[in-house]
Amino acid sequence: MFAEIITIGDEILIGQIVDTNSAWIARHLNNIGIRIKQISSVSDDRQHILTALAEAKNRADIILITGGLGPTKDDITKKTIAEYFGVGLIENKEALSNVESIFLRLRGTLANMLDVNKQQAMVPENCEVILNKNGTAPGMWFNVDGTIYVSMPGVPFEMMYMMEEGVIPKLKATLKLPVIVHKTILTVGEGESYLANKIADIEDSLPSHIKLAYLPKLGQVRLRLSGDGEDEAALKTEIEEFAARITERVGKHVVAQQDISLEQVVLNLMRKKGLKLAVAESCTGGYISHLLTQHAGSSDVFLGGAVTYSNELKEGLLGVKQTTIEQYGAVSEQTVTEMVEGALANFNADYAIAVTGIAGPGGGTPDKPVGTVWVGVAKRGKTMVKKFTFGSKRAQNIERSAVGALFMLITLLREN
Amino acid sequence: MFAEIITIGDEILIGQIVDTNSAWIARHLNNIGIRIKQISSVSDDRQHILTALAEAKNRADIILITGGLGPTKDDITKKTIAEYFGVGLIENKEALSNVESIFLRLRGTLANMLDVNKQQAMVPENCEVILNKNGTAPGMWFNVDGTIYVSMPGVPFEMMYMMEEGVIPKLKATLKLPVIVHKTILTVGEGESYLANKIADIEDSLPSHIKLAYLPKLGQVRLRLSGDGEDEAALKTEIEEFAARITERVGKHVVAQQDISLEQVVLNLMRKKGLKLAVAESCTGGYISHLLTQHAGSSDVFLGGAVTYSNELKEGLLGVKQTTIEQYGAVSEQTVTEMVEGALANFNADYAIAVTGIAGPGGGTPDKPVGTVWVGVAKRGKTMVKKFTFGSKRAQNIERSAVGALFMLITLLREN
Repeated sequence: MFAEIITIGDEILIGQIVDTNSAWIARHLNNIGIRIKQISSVSDDRQHILTALAEAKNRADIILITGGLGPTKDDITKKTIAEYFGVGLIENKEALSNVESIFLRLRGTLANMLDVNKQQAMVPENCEVILNKNGTAPGMWFNVDGTIYVSMPGVPFEMMYMMEEGVIPKLKATLKLPVIVHKTILTVGEGESYLANKIADIEDSLPSHIKLAYLPKLGQVRLRLSGDGEDEAALKTEIEEFAARITERVGKHVVAQQDISLEQVVLNLMRKKGLKLAVAESCTGGYISHLLTQHAGSSDVFLGGAVTYSNELKEGLLGVKQTTIEQYGAVSEQTVTEMVEGALANFNADYAIAVTGIAGPGGGTPDKPVGTVWVGVAKRGKTMVKKFTFGSKRAQNIERSAVGALFMLITLLREN
Repeated sequence: MFAEIITIGDEILIGQIVDTNSAWIARHLNNIGIRIKQISSVSDDRQHILTALAEAKNRADIILITGGLGPTKDDITKKTIAEYFGVGLIENKEALSNVESIFLRLRGTLANMLDVNKQQAMVPENCEVILNKNGTAPGMWFNVDGTIYVSMPGVPFEMMYMMEEGVIPKLKATLKLPVIVHKTILTVGEGESYLANKIADIEDSLPSHIKLAYLPKLGQVRLRLSGDGEDEAALKTEIEEFAARITERVGKHVVAQQDISLEQVVLNLMRKKGLKLAVAESCTGGYISHLLTQHAGSSDVFLGGAVTYSNELKEGLLGVKQTTIEQYGAVSEQTVTEMVEGALANFNADYAIAVTGIAGPGGGTPDKPVGTVWVGVAKRGKTMVKKFTFGSKRAQNIERSAVGALFMLITLLREN
């Protein structure tokens, strides 16, 4: 069962907004066994929309359309879809009463309602309306010659509500969907080609209904097994067996058996054990703290820490000795050791992370080029430090340092 | 001049990643006068890629392709493009030496280089290679029958570097592009419709070759004037005049006359005056520090600071009194005042920022619901604090808090 997503609107094509809707829709359809064949972003242009619909119909059973349903002149999705089906527009009572109730809530009276507001309730005569609880543009469901078309607003929370409450239940009720099972293994510290080489024979032995995808991100690779079938329990068992073989083969580089972020692995591990974390960040400049604290509930684990860009703060907050910095430099094994042990002691944590390095593009020397990063992790009685040599790009060096530090922390946490 | 973007990779179609590349590319091509006709995301499937290339060729003069250049089996972009052009693959020396130098840097020896690594240097024989300084997959430029095709890796920083250093200069050199002048005015703290209303008459008076776009982002709106023409100097002068009128009208909400980030405005203002900044972050959890330190040269201005998620660290690092937290709570005017004044004094800074709030989704009370955030900014002799009431979304609350704090700091900086 294939679907296509068509997003309509110039704001995507001029790069003003990033299309986050499509990934959201794709994820939710995949979960119910519908694969996305193609995602297309097209302009608010009649002919372009008609062509996109015709092309999509040749490839997919379900076509999901977002955008172009606003009340302004450049929003032409609705009338273009009516043209595509060769039908007229009629007023829909449900949609009109939704428009009126929203108008009333915002304005307190229907007296000033304009024609453009009322026109929001006009829909192609061959559609079923899907309620938009969060806006005036109704969703529209068409089932024509065995193809399902759904038109939704481009505003993310309007679309999401409509998908969850209307479209997904209706797709499940209308279609006979296969069972899809996904399993993600998060690995850190080995490149895609090394992993591929290491598990080549396992990959080759996969049956045709199970696929393995490599999803790389700086310093990390997600290995995702996806299978389809009819018997969910049997499929799960089968996929778990392959996952177990891959996990055993890849060894310590596997940090999670689910599709979560590296910092969530840390938070989960530490939360389970009731452990507290503090950080001392120099070249990562608060990024590790931000990664952790973007997650709800991180305060269970994360105490906080110091962002010590200046040497004075390394000394003042972490107790790094001035002589250490003078003798070995701020980016050195000795300094990172004092940083991480200082964070552990001063912030009263069970575990600590420290990072000091040259993120670049400036600040490098022949001895310590840009990309030189020292990471330390520590618990009471044990400190581990490691030197990394990354590249010349600042953002990448910050990201890689964070990944390296979190992976070292996971390694230390696993020792118990 | 029209371009299309084709992103290749199942990870977009399964919703695993959001396609941020396309918006980035669209924005940068728009800046040089190339409009995007369509963006299509297709799977790692030979026939699908061939169809997408053929469809795009009918609509566009330039086709930019990202993704599918990794070393694993599911990465088939390169050989499919070769098939599309009916050519073979040959080894490219430049690309090979790039692969080797990256391998050497990461592994210290070429001894363990695998065939899959070397295959990264194989390219279709009709292409020009575009150097990938940040990865092993070379970029590929084709100019066939008047259509330009460029294939780039999907890894964002590899693609961005390649676009900036290779592709955009080459497009400018190859094509006759119109003169396009952009001018961006960064505003903070006023909504889009309010701004539109305020400058409606100026907008109405714009000549047809100059357009004004409103580019909103949480708490900020960029006003972008774009003009096209033939005489660059005259166009610049004309646009500057409109920009000056808009700036005067919008007043204190304008924080920059260029397309930079809010934190860059702070860094630039403070660098010019030789001032030093420290932060004390609770609910923003390191995000403000990260925003500042992602920029090269931020160490000129940014000393560092404390991420004080726990009350103990608020007391220990910032000198917030235990009785203050007990009496007023961690999210209060009194606590944020002590935080910001503590950061200023303890970290020996000229200016300081402090933020404490309830980012959510948990932790709210009837008195202090989720989204309640106190921000303080201070210099010697003056402290300003302000309460914000945001919404229920954690990520947005963190982002809005940072924007609010940076804008307050800019306001304080401007007082001198």
